[in-house]
Amino acid sequence: MPRDRPQLTNAARPSTFEVATRDEHDAEGVAHIAGEHPLTVYVDKKEILTIMTLGAAPEALVLGYLRNQRLVDDIEDIVAVQVDWDVNAASVYTRNGLVDLDAKMEHRTKTTGCGQGTVFGDLMAEIDEVKLPEGGTLKQSTLYALSDLVRKHETIYKQAGAVHGCALFSPTPELLYFVEDVGRHNAVDAIAGFMWLDGVSGHDKIFYTTGRLTSEMVIKAAQMGIPFLVSRSGLTQMGFEIAKRVGMTMIGRAVNRHFLLFNDAGRFVYDAANDTQ
Amino acid sequence: MPRDRPQLTNAARPSTFEVATRDEHDAEGVAHIAGEHPLTVYVDKKEILTIMTLGAAPEALVLGYLRNQRLVDDIEDIVAVQVDWDVNAASVYTRNGLVDLDAKMEHRTKTTGCGQGTVFGDLMAEIDEVKLPEGGTLKQSTLYALSDLVRKHETIYKQAGAVHGCALFSPTPELLYFVEDVGRHNAVDAIAGFMWLDGVSGHDKIFYTTGRLTSEMVIKAAQMGIPFLVSRSGLTQMGFEIAKRVGMTMIGRAVNRHFLLFNDAGRFVYDAANDTQ
Repeated sequence: MPRDRPQLTNAARPSTFEVATRDEHDAEGVAHIAGEHPLTVYVDKKEILTIMTLGAAPEALVLGYLRNQRLVDDIEDIVAVQVDWDVNAASVYTRNGLVDLDAKMEHRTKTTGCGQGTVFGDLMAEIDEVKLPEGGTLKQSTLYALSDLVRKHETIYKQAGAVHGCALFSPTPELLYFVEDVGRHNAVDAIAGFMWLDGVSGHDKIFYTTGRLTSEMVIKAAQMGIPFLVSRSGLTQMGFEIAKRVGMTMIGRAVNRHFLLFNDAGRFVYDAANDTQ
Repeated sequence: MPRDRPQLTNAARPSTFEVATRDEHDAEGVAHIAGEHPLTVYVDKKEILTIMTLGAAPEALVLGYLRNQRLVDDIEDIVAVQVDWDVNAASVYTRNGLVDLDAKMEHRTKTTGCGQGTVFGDLMAEIDEVKLPEGGTLKQSTLYALSDLVRKHETIYKQAGAVHGCALFSPTPELLYFVEDVGRHNAVDAIAGFMWLDGVSGHDKIFYTTGRLTSEMVIKAAQMGIPFLVSRSGLTQMGFEIAKRVGMTMIGRAVNRHFLLFNDAGRFVYDAANDTQ
């Protein structure tokens, strides 16, 4: 039986804006800069938080935020997400209200690093319950193929910088979702929102991010049940330790045909020794 | 009369760690990765939040966080900051308690984007009260000189990546503070903490960051009263708009001898036309 899909607006905003500049030669020019907009999230008319976002996928971002914060357990509990940029608001309507909102908000106040980009206490507790699927493989040739696909999609970054991109790939690899945002965590949340909406399981997927693999990025990928995490950037010690703990295959510094395998978990297959493009 | 300086531990942690890697040729290697540690902040034994940090300047980070969140108004209200990594805790003791903590925490819950790196409501309200000092100049040759100084200091980034650096310069330019952290906002907060501790005014200073100039970065620089903001990276639309609103001289894409002047406010002086190093 098909699931009830929430009613969604489709309120993506223009992603880049032109501004006048002067360069080192005192020459006037025009630069493209990335949009950044406050989006205040209301759930059943209760204000939850304000997210600063590029605004490219606001409905998926809000859904993924609610999902990743475990404020809603089932997508069928969401009736609608209505984004209205005239008032910078995302109004979420639920069937039965949020479970335990006050308790979760209270806990969030105590344990999260606002402005530090982390929500620590709850997430670490949850990590010990995550079991990433064993088996499965990621071939070097697949890694290269998905890197090539990503390169073609980073349009906002190429034009304006100041954004991070995240992508979800099938094993083929097929690019399933690609989201850029001014916030590293927004892009991850939006991907989670799309997966949740479409009923996509993470068990055989590959998550790619241009951003650094800090603890929270690794935790979010693990929460989404994704065994393969690839970044163009580096990683932190805690990101590394959590990847080992949950058995995630973790690759950093993936640029062109270079990469570093930081944690394997028995899934990586070298099959492209002669591909030196 | 000299001010009472808070009693501080000096609990910086090792910044990088070695991990084993395999590269694209299946060759084993060793990579340095940046540390990342939870640090839970207690004020007068009440838990405030957990910050994920590199741990290079934890006492200044905690002080700057309390300052930038406007949880403490006067450095003399702080008796001590004691960081103990055995329990990942920073214990802050105040003379008179935090003013209005519950109200501020409540508001924070409603308006901040945990995991989105923003604390929006309060900060935007405050911005309209910021008056950056007019006059003052930033010479192109000074910009180049400080870029050179920064290059010499980015040791953790060069070794391990995955960190952002922030620096505060005098007009000379002299490098007053340099902090790297896994969180962009942590590095800013730590600089604010050092300035607060040392009674350093921002009015003639130049703030440099490797990170993107999002709204919150610009707001924080404005809060610190700093008229000059320089980034190696790009900026967002809202960062740009706030810089215009407060009259901040804002420079992005500052790499080697290249830069883009996004907002001038009548302070930038071209004096190095022939310096093409």
